[in-house]
Formats: sequence, structure tokens, C-alpha cells
Amino acid sequence: MARSPVKNLKWNPGTAGNEALPYPDDLVGQVDSYLAELEFGEKEPVMPLTEAMRYSLLAGGKRIRPILLLATGRAYGTPPAAIMPAAAALEMIHTYSLIHDDLPAFDDDALRRGQPSCHVKFGENVAILAGDALFAEAYRLICERLEAAPPVRLSVIEEISVATGVKGVVGGQLIDIMGSACDGDTLEMLHSLKTGRLITACVRCGGLLAGVTAPELTQLSGFAADLGLLFQIKDDILDVVGETAVLGKQAGADLRHKRCTYASLYGLDESMRLAQEYRSRALEALEGLQGDTGDLAGITNYIYERQR
Amino acid sequence: MARSPVKNLKWNPGTAGNEALPYPDDLVGQVDSYLAELEFGEKEPVMPLTEAMRYSLLAGGKRIRPILLLATGRAYGTPPAAIMPAAAALEMIHTYSLIHDDLPAFDDDALRRGQPSCHVKFGENVAILAGDALFAEAYRLICERLEAAPPVRLSVIEEISVATGVKGVVGGQLIDIMGSACDGDTLEMLHSLKTGRLITACVRCGGLLAGVTAPELTQLSGFAADLGLLFQIKDDILDVVGETAVLGKQAGADLRHKRCTYASLYGLDESMRLAQEYRSRALEALEGLQGDTGDLAGITNYIYERQR
Repeated sequence: MARSPVKNLKWNPGTAGNEALPYPDDLVGQVDSYLAELEFGEKEPVMPLTEAMRYSLLAGGKRIRPILLLATGRAYGTPPAAIMPAAAALEMIHTYSLIHDDLPAFDDDALRRGQPSCHVKFGENVAILAGDALFAEAYRLICERLEAAPPVRLSVIEEISVATGVKGVVGGQLIDIMGSACDGDTLEMLHSLKTGRLITACVRCGGLLAGVTAPELTQLSGFAADLGLLFQIKDDILDVVGETAVLGKQAGADLRHKRCTYASLYGLDESMRLAQEYRSRALEALEGLQGDTGDLAGITNYIYERQR
Repeated sequence: MARSPVKNLKWNPGTAGNEALPYPDDLVGQVDSYLAELEFGEKEPVMPLTEAMRYSLLAGGKRIRPILLLATGRAYGTPPAAIMPAAAALEMIHTYSLIHDDLPAFDDDALRRGQPSCHVKFGENVAILAGDALFAEAYRLICERLEAAPPVRLSVIEEISVATGVKGVVGGQLIDIMGSACDGDTLEMLHSLKTGRLITACVRCGGLLAGVTAPELTQLSGFAADLGLLFQIKDDILDVVGETAVLGKQAGADLRHKRCTYASLYGLDESMRLAQEYRSRALEALEGLQGDTGDLAGITNYIYERQR
């Protein structure tokens, strides 16, 4: 078993109160309603495409990424409705990455969010296009609907483009499929690109749209990095201990694909301890922020406690 | 054989002089050099991804789309170098669409630009990711490198996002694979989305970056629409009469896939006449413009005369 990278981290007793804060459930319905009302300009000939896009986009879930963006904005007084297009765009991009990730050429997962994967339902070609279209439409949504000063909108777009490219989601997916040596550095790089970078983008976009200062944005990024690792460690644990029916996707996929995960590298007990420590670090990072970060603490707790 | 849609178009004798103008070959080298020098931030673990991206991006060709953008800008006095990042981004997006289009789930083409298709060379999973990454990196390039006022950069991004989404390339690809009834309306919708919209985006982005007026932009769009149809009609003709070795991709693919094309709907002779008429229309549209449109006429001629 490899040596855990954060062995000497200390528990911070000051964060104890934050551990009781709940997930901002009020935002889930707002995100779901907004996504359901999106128009992609469907004329009859492209209906199979928009149907597949909606099928995957509206499959539910806790909407962690858009809600991270909205909660970060709200922490600094920006109303969720004012920045909803950016939040929706990030959920569309997340959905696009899941659709492509589930394809036979990748994880070959037949189940997602408790229902048949996009390619199982609509065929591989339509699923690839549905992912491609969600990505394009996410940018269109930001361009057409997000009300913010042009330089701020550009910062948001830049943030997203970095998080989704070679230095983000797609780079991470590549490392994942190449299945290189499983060591701590590779694992951290894989996850900081594949999962962490988009989570960081959600937090940073919320901060950018709320007009936070540069130092505050840096602080927010630190919180997001810890949160991203917490998310991934928990994901790896759930793949081992979770049940398919609860997860809404096939459990045991990591083992089946011989993936390098926190669980395979450090073992389950140590992974659980790591998850606890990254929660602590994330909550601690929130304490150094200027905003009202109760919602962000609630999201952190949910990610730590989630069973799917 | 279906009735041709533009039967009563008149030949415009005023465009005769434009038909001798050459392709702006000086721009090909500039585009190629710029693309070759692009950095995608490659660290060792993501090398297979950036290698696949470069393989397809640097396979050569006449670079019609970026050069359309550059030539449109130059027609109004904007130096190509000043708007090269936008031109490169459009070539990256075009390359992404070709990579996904060649996949087994789509056209299943083993040959592209005279060499093995991306998925044949690197595998299906890497090819899908290379396409995804080129799309993301195209936006990043515009955000990080294109020097233009923020509202102009946003207009360019919006233009591209519309042209690549449901109302553009991906919508067109969907109609293509669904193989609906072959009639004039479907054919025109298919091609205006799959090919025409991105060609229009190139011309419009060149105009936007050169700061043309709204009426001029509308006029440019009219030219681009005719050019896009000319491009597609010629493409359909070449698929029938061209040879694989010259085309650099498999000839006869349309017939093999039982595609609805200008050649299959109207016959080869009528398609050739249509191509001639759309060239004439495009050259005529240029005459109504304020800029020095010699390069755009040369591009029109090349598209009409090309053998691949």
C-alpha cells in the first residue's frame, strides 16, 4: 500500500461547527427548472439530437457543479438568478463529459444517473453528437444570456475553456484511458485535471461573477482544489463500497477497468481518512474567506457524506 | 431527377473579370506556421492527446476556413497577423468536426487528407478526445491570444458557438446520420447547417474583427451563404468524379452511405450547372461590398475549380 500524501495534516478544531451545515437544497430546484426550460432551437430534423441532450441533462442529480457556482456568487451577495446561465453552462459541460466518458470506447458504462446511458438509449453516434452539442450550446448560453460586463464574461469563458481542454477534463480523460503507472503523483494529476479543474472553474466563475478581488479568488481556488480532491476520493470509495442501485451507475467499475484510484493505491481505510482530512482542509479554507460561506460548507459536507 | 432550385438565375456578365483572380496562397504558409507553433501545454502524461491533435491539425490542406476569415479581414484593411488566433481557432474547430465525422459510428472513413484518419492512427478513444480538446482549445486560443475589444471578442465567440451547435455543424451532422427523406429542402438545411454555417462564421468573424458596419456584415453573410452552397455542391460532385488519391479521402463515400447529395438528387450535369451558378452568385455578392474583395473572389474560384 502506498504512503498517503497528507499523513501529517492536523485536524482543525475550529471547523467543527461548519460540519453541521446542510446542502443548499433551495438551489437544486432553481437549476433544474432553468435547465428544463432551455431552448436549443429545435426544428423537427434535429429533434433526435435535442432529445438526447435533454435526456442526459435532465436526468437529475444534486447539481453540485452549478450549485457550487451559484453558492460562491451568493456568498458575496450575487443572487443565483443573475448568474444562472453560467451555472447551467457548467452543468451542460459536465453532462457532455459524462456522455463521452460512458461511451464504449471509454468506460463502456450502460447506466448513468439510474437510467440507460445516452449511447445505450440513442446510439453511439447520437450520443457523441449530443455531447458535442452540449459543449457548443454551453458557450452559446453564456454569450447570449449571461448578463455581466464583457471582460467578466470573457474571464468566465476563458476559465471554462482551460478547464475543459488539455489542461482540464479532456487531458484528465486521456491520462485515465492510457492507464499509466499508478502512483501518488499520477493519481493527483489525473484527478486534478479530470475532476478537480472543472470544480475549480465552478467556484472561480462564481467568484469572478461576484466581482471578488484577486486575493479572494486565489483563496477560493485553494478551497476548490481541496474540495475537488475530496470529491474524487469519495468517488473512489463509493465505487468500492457503494451499490449500483444507490449510485445510479455501475459500482465496481474502477476495479473492472483496473483503474488507479485512491482506494486501489492507499486502501479503503486510508482513503476514508484522507476524505475526512480533505473535508477538514476545505472547511478550513472557507474560514479565511470574506464571504458568507455557509452554503459552501454545506456542499463540502454533502460531498463528504454522500452515498452516491 | 428533382427539379433544380435555381433554374432561372441569370449569369451576371459583370463578374467575368473576377473569375481569373487566384487563391491567396500567401496566407496558407502563415496559417500553417501559426498552427505548427501552437502550444497546448503538453506535459508528458497528455502527450498522446496533443500528438493526435497535431497529427490531424497539421495534415495540411488549403486552409479554406481560416483563410476566409483572414481574407475578409484584409478586405477591410485588417492585417492577417492581427486576427490569426481567430483563424486558427476556426481551423481547429473544423479539424475537430472532421475527426468526429470520420469515426466508425459516423462515416467510418479510414483516410483523411491523404493519411490514416485520426482514429485509425490513434484509436477511437484518443480520436474522440482529440476532437473534444481541439474544440476547447479553440476557445482558449481566442480568449488568451486574440487582441480585440472585449465586446468584439464576445461576438466572435458567440458566432462560433452558434455555428458549432444545434443550429450549426452538430445539427447538420445529426441530420446527415439520420438519413431522412432526400428532397431539396432537407438537402439545403443539411448543408447550410453542416458546412455552410461554419463557412459563414469564418466570413462574419473576419468582418466583425475588421469592424465592418451591420449592413456590410449582412452583405458578407449573403456572400458566405452562396459560397457555402458552392462548396458543398462541388464536394458532392468530387465524391462522384474524384479519385481517392487526389481527394485525400475515400471517393464514392456518399454512394456507399446512400447519402442525399446534390449529385444524387439533381444528377451530375445539373449539379455542375448549379456550381457554376452559385459561383456567379457569390462573385456577384462581392461586387456589392465596400472592401477590396479580390482575395474572396480568388477563394470562390478555387472552391469552384478545386479537384480535391
